[in-house]
Amino acid sequence: MDIKTYINTNRDRFLTDLSAFLAIPSVSTQPEHKKHMEKASAWLVKYLRGIGLKHVQRYKSDGAPLVFASLIENPNKPTLLIYGHYDVQPPEPIEKWKTPPFVATVKNDKIFARGASDNKGQMIINFFALEYLLKEHHKLPLNVKIIIEGEEEVGGKHLEPFIRRHKDLLKADFALISDSSILSKTQPSIDYGLRGIVYFELEITGPKQDIHSGTYGGIIQNPTNAAAQIIARMQNDNGDLLIPGIYKNVRKFSKEEKALIADQVTKEQIRKETGVQELIGDRNISVEEIVGAKPSLDVHGIWGGFRKQGEKTIIPDKVTCKFSIRIVPYMTGKETARLVVEYIKNIKPRGVKINIKVLSAYDPYLMDFRSPVLQIAGKALAESFGAEAKFSLDGGSIPVTTMFRKFLGIDTVLMGYGLPDDNLHGPNEKMDLVQIWKGIETSTKFLEYLAKR
Amino acid sequence: MDIKTYINTNRDRFLTDLSAFLAIPSVSTQPEHKKHMEKASAWLVKYLRGIGLKHVQRYKSDGAPLVFASLIENPNKPTLLIYGHYDVQPPEPIEKWKTPPFVATVKNDKIFARGASDNKGQMIINFFALEYLLKEHHKLPLNVKIIIEGEEEVGGKHLEPFIRRHKDLLKADFALISDSSILSKTQPSIDYGLRGIVYFELEITGPKQDIHSGTYGGIIQNPTNAAAQIIARMQNDNGDLLIPGIYKNVRKFSKEEKALIADQVTKEQIRKETGVQELIGDRNISVEEIVGAKPSLDVHGIWGGFRKQGEKTIIPDKVTCKFSIRIVPYMTGKETARLVVEYIKNIKPRGVKINIKVLSAYDPYLMDFRSPVLQIAGKALAESFGAEAKFSLDGGSIPVTTMFRKFLGIDTVLMGYGLPDDNLHGPNEKMDLVQIWKGIETSTKFLEYLAKR
Repeated sequence: MDIKTYINTNRDRFLTDLSAFLAIPSVSTQPEHKKHMEKASAWLVKYLRGIGLKHVQRYKSDGAPLVFASLIENPNKPTLLIYGHYDVQPPEPIEKWKTPPFVATVKNDKIFARGASDNKGQMIINFFALEYLLKEHHKLPLNVKIIIEGEEEVGGKHLEPFIRRHKDLLKADFALISDSSILSKTQPSIDYGLRGIVYFELEITGPKQDIHSGTYGGIIQNPTNAAAQIIARMQNDNGDLLIPGIYKNVRKFSKEEKALIADQVTKEQIRKETGVQELIGDRNISVEEIVGAKPSLDVHGIWGGFRKQGEKTIIPDKVTCKFSIRIVPYMTGKETARLVVEYIKNIKPRGVKINIKVLSAYDPYLMDFRSPVLQIAGKALAESFGAEAKFSLDGGSIPVTTMFRKFLGIDTVLMGYGLPDDNLHGPNEKMDLVQIWKGIETSTKFLEYLAKR
Repeated sequence: MDIKTYINTNRDRFLTDLSAFLAIPSVSTQPEHKKHMEKASAWLVKYLRGIGLKHVQRYKSDGAPLVFASLIENPNKPTLLIYGHYDVQPPEPIEKWKTPPFVATVKNDKIFARGASDNKGQMIINFFALEYLLKEHHKLPLNVKIIIEGEEEVGGKHLEPFIRRHKDLLKADFALISDSSILSKTQPSIDYGLRGIVYFELEITGPKQDIHSGTYGGIIQNPTNAAAQIIARMQNDNGDLLIPGIYKNVRKFSKEEKALIADQVTKEQIRKETGVQELIGDRNISVEEIVGAKPSLDVHGIWGGFRKQGEKTIIPDKVTCKFSIRIVPYMTGKETARLVVEYIKNIKPRGVKINIKVLSAYDPYLMDFRSPVLQIAGKALAESFGAEAKFSLDGGSIPVTTMFRKFLGIDTVLMGYGLPDDNLHGPNEKMDLVQIWKGIETSTKFLEYLAKR
């Protein structure tokens, strides 16, 4: 039976399997769901054994367990390491969901549930492809290893030491991650680069307690005023960074590459997705280049002082903010952290104390889009979706790509099947069924072509 | 019996009366204390009738009741209008109190309780003086009216319409408020000016919901980044305001007045009170002039985006902040509000929407320190405290002073007896007993001297 026929024959059963997986509320950020992390990882163990993978086992940590599986067909064939994560974002705000977040609901050829796209629904596409190959061909065209974590949504700190300690177990020629999106249903694409991220927490302390703004206003530095000065001095209204040296190692683009990534996303599409009419950023370069190939700084949260109804007239004792800088090749997390910490110490207004912590620092990721493995991935996409695949730069960060490169010495193929309107992390997360069917076909072809390489 | 003897004889009973008043938790900001607002106002009615005042009655509003009383001895004599407030700040954080906030505790010649200084303990000083005069002299040297509100700590909106509607009832020649502090136990002082205040709430809105900072960082304006730019553009690190036109009407000081207010508060004292080592503000003028005679801007609270432990990478949909500008003569609340709103609209970074509300606007207050009534107040203070009284400018705001001037056409004498370390609004609020005894003496003398003017 060919892959198209197999998919058509097994659609309902695929959805039944995926729905069972989506029904487990494996929310890693909420401690009350600890038992569901156990349940989701156990479900994967059973499922992967069921389709014929070997050495399927869970590795416990003091966080959520990791799931490993492998099938070595022939040591002379290439080995592909497939990564996924079974944890999901919290469903809140629940009242904004039209169907219950942990009851998978199929409607208008979409499946709605928390995790439908990120990442249960995408990860399982690759497992369905393995299932087809094992059932219909009775073997895989290459060797496969699988590693699945349960702490992706909490920036889990257990994956990196696991990879470092299990280099032999995870040894492979390439990695594959399906945890991103393509441009549209009719326009397949593949990411050849990601931004890295350096995440900071900045605490600014002033008086020993909240003090009266009448008695002291004008003579005591206000920590909120000071926080505003610091944030305002790090970037301008246009989104350009003002930190000395920050652009020094930013990769120069060739005309060819500029043209390659341009015109994939229209400004109109961004306006529609965000509801914001007026965009920022350099008007002389494409929006794709700004988002994918320039560093950016965003404050994610800020809080301090009086935050209730009415009026209170204090100089608050403290204000805290979290911000991150997305970094691009050839910037490094380490150097960026150093430049930012040094700069903030220099520009800090007088009369306040600062405490700055680097919560995490991940380097950017980049492959040559002309590399054979990406051309193979493009071919599989093109055949399944019926259109030439585009090569894109993604503004987001997938830190595991840099871990695989650093500790295993391998590249990662980022072949995502989500769509830009999947509502990852938001209410009514969904995956279009057509993306699942085309994804299974793509994944199958990618494995077959990679084996013949 | 002279006033000193009367005070010595009645100390215990004064403290018993004050303790009963302090025991009522009349916290105006917390709806669950509504019955205590009734109880505290009823206590005042009973007390004021008890010492011999007439026409004592409560005026209900849809907020806390107002208490009025009067005693017209002779229509040809001057009339003094005494203002006070019976509501108090919430006691939170309760765990930081060494004694229960609503059980008045006398220790080391201080009385500890919420409201001990602000304002129950200070207001009652004037009533004890009236009690002495009525009991020992059987009449007052001048006519007295009393107005007491229960919404001072919530910026209550019922006092102003009440004054406007009851101009005849409240008609007087001068007003007296004891709701401030003096320089020290041995250095009496009297405020001849207060700053006004214009209070703003600023909401900055970006994308229609929280969006991914990887996908959109660099192309969509972040409302928190924008808030920082707006706040940072309103004042510099030194506390100087950058709003065009804002200093235009600021009063010029004569050398005499500069000398008059200088050297009342040391920088060392401010460092000790606030725990901040490095002060801001113009080094060429005294700290008193900065705090009392220059406008200042303080952010009181700010909140937006992700405010929990860990890392989340969003561009928040919205950030809100509250800030105020303290204004000095001859700035006006109305013009300041106009300048600020116009300026913010001009400097707003592109790609966000702003919504700015003026929550309140009160003009500054100023008397001529050479005016006869202030000289009389100074004489009463000097005799009771045994030291020449200084004339001060206070950086805080008491909006009722401008209401009395606007609707009744009268000046207000600000004769406070608190000390700078009374912990108003904080835990372990206290009043030194010696301030109460000297206050009663001062108030009695002030009434007597004012009658003879």
